[in-house]
Amino acid sequence: LAIWQRRLFFFFFFFAVAPNNHFGNFVFKMFTSVVVVVLIPAGYSNGFRGQVASAGLLDLLDEGVPGVGTYEDFNTIDWVREKSKDRDRHREINRQKKQSDLALLLSLIDAFSGWLLMLLIGLLSGALAGGIDIAAHWLTDLKEGFCMKGFWFTHEHCCWKSNETTFQRRNKCPQWKSWAELMVGVPEGASAYVVNYLMYVSWALIFSYLAVILVRAFAPYACGSGIPEIKTILSGFIIRGYLGKWTLLIKTITLVLAVSSGLSLGKEGPLVHVACCCGNILCHLFTKYRKNEAKRREVLSAASAVGVSVAFGAPIGGVLFSLEEVSYYFPLKTLWRSFFAALVAAFTLRSINPFGNSRLVLFYVEFHTPWHFLELFPFVLLGIFGGLWGALFIRANIAWCRRRKTTRLGHYPVLEVVVVALATAVLAFPNEYTRMSSSELISELFNDCSLLDSSKLCDYISPGKGGERAANFSMTTNGLADRAAGPGVYTALWQLVLALVFKMFITVVTFGMKVPSGLFIPSMAVGAIAGRLLGIGMEQLAYYHHEWPMFKGWCSLGAKCITPGLYAMLGAAACLGGVTRMTVSLVVIMFELTGGLEYIVPLMAATMTSKWVADALGREGIYEAHIRLNGYPFLEPKEEFEQKTLAMDVMRPRRNDPPLSVLTQDGMTVEEVEGMISDTSYSGFPVVVSHQSQRLVGFVLRRDLVISIDNARCCQDGIVGASRVLFTEHTPSHPYQGGPPPLSLRPILDLSPLAITDHTPMEITVDIFRKLGLRQCLVTQNGCLLGIITKKDILKHMAQMANRDPDSILFN
Amino acid sequence: LAIWQRRLFFFFFFFAVAPNNHFGNFVFKMFTSVVVVVLIPAGYSNGFRGQVASAGLLDLLDEGVPGVGTYEDFNTIDWVREKSKDRDRHREINRQKKQSDLALLLSLIDAFSGWLLMLLIGLLSGALAGGIDIAAHWLTDLKEGFCMKGFWFTHEHCCWKSNETTFQRRNKCPQWKSWAELMVGVPEGASAYVVNYLMYVSWALIFSYLAVILVRAFAPYACGSGIPEIKTILSGFIIRGYLGKWTLLIKTITLVLAVSSGLSLGKEGPLVHVACCCGNILCHLFTKYRKNEAKRREVLSAASAVGVSVAFGAPIGGVLFSLEEVSYYFPLKTLWRSFFAALVAAFTLRSINPFGNSRLVLFYVEFHTPWHFLELFPFVLLGIFGGLWGALFIRANIAWCRRRKTTRLGHYPVLEVVVVALATAVLAFPNEYTRMSSSELISELFNDCSLLDSSKLCDYISPGKGGERAANFSMTTNGLADRAAGPGVYTALWQLVLALVFKMFITVVTFGMKVPSGLFIPSMAVGAIAGRLLGIGMEQLAYYHHEWPMFKGWCSLGAKCITPGLYAMLGAAACLGGVTRMTVSLVVIMFELTGGLEYIVPLMAATMTSKWVADALGREGIYEAHIRLNGYPFLEPKEEFEQKTLAMDVMRPRRNDPPLSVLTQDGMTVEEVEGMISDTSYSGFPVVVSHQSQRLVGFVLRRDLVISIDNARCCQDGIVGASRVLFTEHTPSHPYQGGPPPLSLRPILDLSPLAITDHTPMEITVDIFRKLGLRQCLVTQNGCLLGIITKKDILKHMAQMANRDPDSILFN
Repeated sequence: LAIWQRRLFFFFFFFAVAPNNHFGNFVFKMFTSVVVVVLIPAGYSNGFRGQVASAGLLDLLDEGVPGVGTYEDFNTIDWVREKSKDRDRHREINRQKKQSDLALLLSLIDAFSGWLLMLLIGLLSGALAGGIDIAAHWLTDLKEGFCMKGFWFTHEHCCWKSNETTFQRRNKCPQWKSWAELMVGVPEGASAYVVNYLMYVSWALIFSYLAVILVRAFAPYACGSGIPEIKTILSGFIIRGYLGKWTLLIKTITLVLAVSSGLSLGKEGPLVHVACCCGNILCHLFTKYRKNEAKRREVLSAASAVGVSVAFGAPIGGVLFSLEEVSYYFPLKTLWRSFFAALVAAFTLRSINPFGNSRLVLFYVEFHTPWHFLELFPFVLLGIFGGLWGALFIRANIAWCRRRKTTRLGHYPVLEVVVVALATAVLAFPNEYTRMSSSELISELFNDCSLLDSSKLCDYISPGKGGERAANFSMTTNGLADRAAGPGVYTALWQLVLALVFKMFITVVTFGMKVPSGLFIPSMAVGAIAGRLLGIGMEQLAYYHHEWPMFKGWCSLGAKCITPGLYAMLGAAACLGGVTRMTVSLVVIMFELTGGLEYIVPLMAATMTSKWVADALGREGIYEAHIRLNGYPFLEPKEEFEQKTLAMDVMRPRRNDPPLSVLTQDGMTVEEVEGMISDTSYSGFPVVVSHQSQRLVGFVLRRDLVISIDNARCCQDGIVGASRVLFTEHTPSHPYQGGPPPLSLRPILDLSPLAITDHTPMEITVDIFRKLGLRQCLVTQNGCLLGIITKKDILKHMAQMANRDPDSILFN
Repeated sequence: LAIWQRRLFFFFFFFAVAPNNHFGNFVFKMFTSVVVVVLIPAGYSNGFRGQVASAGLLDLLDEGVPGVGTYEDFNTIDWVREKSKDRDRHREINRQKKQSDLALLLSLIDAFSGWLLMLLIGLLSGALAGGIDIAAHWLTDLKEGFCMKGFWFTHEHCCWKSNETTFQRRNKCPQWKSWAELMVGVPEGASAYVVNYLMYVSWALIFSYLAVILVRAFAPYACGSGIPEIKTILSGFIIRGYLGKWTLLIKTITLVLAVSSGLSLGKEGPLVHVACCCGNILCHLFTKYRKNEAKRREVLSAASAVGVSVAFGAPIGGVLFSLEEVSYYFPLKTLWRSFFAALVAAFTLRSINPFGNSRLVLFYVEFHTPWHFLELFPFVLLGIFGGLWGALFIRANIAWCRRRKTTRLGHYPVLEVVVVALATAVLAFPNEYTRMSSSELISELFNDCSLLDSSKLCDYISPGKGGERAANFSMTTNGLADRAAGPGVYTALWQLVLALVFKMFITVVTFGMKVPSGLFIPSMAVGAIAGRLLGIGMEQLAYYHHEWPMFKGWCSLGAKCITPGLYAMLGAAACLGGVTRMTVSLVVIMFELTGGLEYIVPLMAATMTSKWVADALGREGIYEAHIRLNGYPFLEPKEEFEQKTLAMDVMRPRRNDPPLSVLTQDGMTVEEVEGMISDTSYSGFPVVVSHQSQRLVGFVLRRDLVISIDNARCCQDGIVGASRVLFTEHTPSHPYQGGPPPLSLRPILDLSPLAITDHTPMEITVDIFRKLGLRQCLVTQNGCLLGIITKKDILKHMAQMANRDPDSILFN
């Protein structure tokens, strides 16, 4: 498994040192300079930590008691607190920087560390994406044959310099041997077919088995697409290890294996996860980002833009994807930085050049025929298809995943993957369009037929065979007129219909298995097939019936009026839109793929229809549906809260519950507080003036309380169970009549907890929670503390209101 | 002045009915269908209003007492309340729609009215922008001459079908007469020059005089760029009439005049204002948007995207501009709708085709030469120039505008405009590069020289004059090699230097005068001149010193290595970035202009440097600076609040002030309340349980209170001065011992005022104000009401902290 790594470095190094390679050069220089720039201050600041800390620069930035201010696993962060912490830090640096030159330098490094981090994320993610592309290409080709020049060549590279290769014969250069040629010595015939079939299935099984075993053994978090979890993490949830180095390593490797095994999955979602892992790991280089959960989430938002940028070669689309689909808190500063990181990543990927065509984008297409106004009708039809399929896919997939969770099916993840891989391989091999990888299929479907094209899809009958007339004809129309479909096209049509049905079903069971699996490519493949079918249909209709009124005036005989490739593209966009409910980002990604503003109106028509149709059948996109299925505490920013309930209906304690557990500011002993902590499981307690008045003073977090009391008990003199716990501003100068010294916990008291009145409508409460990123909020009535609302309460309430099971929200 | 309107409709109609015109056709059909779709439900809902209202559908949507819930001029809206109102409305519609088919239909119309509105805004703004372009073109040409075929032809259209026109002679077709030819009969020579000069200056004076007179007489709000005010309005401020029909009409007309007068101003900022006026006016068609200030601001955000979209032909850039630069509250739904509106507008503009080249974009360029890594150095230099110029321009312009406000200069706006126009025309005419309009200048500077180009800037010396060698040479290098500059280029260089100095100074005094004036085009012109100068310098350096180590390897003799047009483009981007501090949107606009991802890295380098340099010299962009100059209450979302003050330091009453004016929930009479209203000028009063406990119940707005009491006094039986005002939930069933009946004002009481504690850090308070769009916030201590913080208090505090004059914030 180290092969692809070696190949990656080989490629990277080759492109970096090749003298004519412009961008390789650029990237190489950037890389070395960055390594120098990073390592020096990193070592510097670590090495000098002691000295600097003793100079008083950093000790104020660190917390007094270790652990106070951090979070436990599966908990929600408090955005307000994290942002305050960062501002304190920034203020401290600003204060120091006026005092010494060293501090000034460090403050400058601090200010630019964000940009540096973005650069590093871009470089690393771009390199990893390039490596994944190359490795997946190679392993996919390995399923079909072997290069005699060296096992590390892909089919394309193997035949690259072969002399025999014309356009048609390129696939059959002598250096490249199919498994049948190697094993039974015959390139064609029944026995060769059987051998190739068996080898194809065997490799698929091996790859998928390896993938699932690696995921199970080393990094369970590496499975799936990762986007639902990343959305949840970005909204402020903590899942330790989800973006760790093991997940990165295993996800990178298993993604290659899963894609190569031929399963109906893509690498786009997982690439977002990979980029986020890179971002999270690289955050550890900088104190600013390592220690602050809110700042780190800004970096992760940018990283998710990087992921889409390298997946499609669409940096602007990536940034908009992050903004529209993934991110929760996206300040303008992050927009600009994401854009920078996405560009760096796209150019790194381009300099690695995994597709061998110097193109940034995955599916490069160039259409030259304008579309006609009347074509909007089939475009809208594609949109309807995409919306229907998207909504049905989500329902079917969620039903299947729920079945997996609740029945015995979930106990055999390895077996499931192997069985699905077997079914996929067995069914896919006989059909040319399912045998090839999904991205190749999409490329072929998007492609507009030129005269030289040898694909079956381009097997049209020239209007006059041979002689003067044909030549003249193709001269006048530039060889691109609509023509009658030949037998190849009809065969292709049938195979495409079968492929469509196959892909539609197999994707439902594939997405959600315990291997890395993205949904973009399979959705696009379904849409592209449907679109191409409709496109060819329209084309033939227009060719045979160009006298029909609907074609009159714009589609006469011998004119090029329908571009089936465009239909395929629109179908792909519509299906992707139906599944993910992306809008602007989807249009922009497609716009970057095609590079022309010409087709934005058809794209808008298709994606808008698709979104409306899909939304009418079910409000949630696939990611939201999976978030809900898994019970993550995610407060959807898009969904409007429609109910007319009030905060008093949602807060705890409910009408018949015992009263709220509160601390008083000076009336409790350490023992009483410890008792309350062990009796309850709340993650925080309000502090009031007295039990009688219930007037709110502040809020203290359970974790901080536990740590502080433990710390005081072990290290502070005289703190015993009977010591009074004080949250007041002034500790009494003389201790209570000979009693033990009091414990002042004022430093851990949050003096500015947000409180709302009991009459606040829930829609405003939900808005406050979303916009400020709160974890809990206190409820008062006429100035007296009445209750508390946590994020979980809100989620449960929303689930109840939507007639869903409120107990599905698992975490806090 | 009706000419341009007639021309506009003529053009629109022509392009709409021309059978071959694809988009014209499309737009025409869209337009007619839209007219039908709009007029029918509008008439329908108006006509059936009485009937429907009696059916109980709409009366719940209207307020009980007219005027309650609206705002006065120069006041800040309460976003939370507006959004609640919209949710109530939506909930009501949802409830009704289950009951009758008519309500279901109306709810569908309501749901799609947002999209329809976007379509209308796009069509109207696109049409207006097309009209402005055509009219400005025509008037600009009128300064130089006159078409004999018909006065309504521009120079270009006049010579369009002339037979004599080769590339060089196109400018001199016989139908087009310069003023000298018409008046003294000679086309060239000293007397002709003088006549042309005089006519040029006279026309400039006439146009500018007309523009300023029209603005003064009919719509004072039509002056300036409008973007600072639109930013303020979008953040929740009310300026009545700023987006009204008179402003729209006058701004459209005077913009044409101002641009044609040759003043150093552009039409991009004003186009944003024009689009926002369209948006605001069209909002009146739909109750949903007419009655809700928050919803209307969503529409205006989209309209500002439309403005930039039609200004540059860059829809995606327009949306990002709105997101990054203008908007305050930009939910995802608005993103998607803005994009739609921006596209519709761009295509409408394109179908009008004002530039005559079927291009969507204002400056279409296509470069083919790749850039080299070492060129990043001059690119960064351009960025530094842009940043320096941006920062200095802002300072100089603000100083000049302050002078205008404070000295007698401000009393003579008409004279000022005429004098500046005179100076501009007199100085501009002798120099060819200032005589032409700024957008033509930018186009010429961006342009890459082809061999056929007749411009002076392309007067290069071919390597070997005549004969075989030159032909061969140009064959091998495709005719695009770097060449030595000829005398034309050297003349052009000097003229460009003079033009640069002229533009740099004249723009400072022009921006802010009482005519519509945009800043994009002048800034871009300055940058483009500087960039072209540097580009030509680099090119000649590389040509004469191609053996220098820095040019070695990539820039040998006979190779095309430097593209001066690219430098001009980067310079323009850098200067625009320095002035406006746009980042992503600027890069995307430029990317849409050039249409290639190739040049994104140079663009990023130039704009990033420019922003950093400019930010180092002054934090504010030109729009923020003008907002502050004018004292608008705008809470900058980008600026971080760095100080460590607490809410108690900002709230009123201050330490020695009289206590806060509060109402009690059941202890005051109507007279006492009226007395408090007349004694104070606060826009709202907190309601407490009693004066002793100071426990907060709610908040009531002054305007609502005044209207309700007036209403009760006139229409409600028995309400006299001694009536008790009750804010409690339950009105006592029997009136107080024979006294007058009490007045219950519970319905206007806001039961969910946001309250923070006195210890809340101001950074969090500022964040809460920004994110929730608050107008005021109450401050409590241990549950007791202590004070109030308004948006104005925060702005004053921020001004104080930044050592600025806190009294500059004028409005509330």
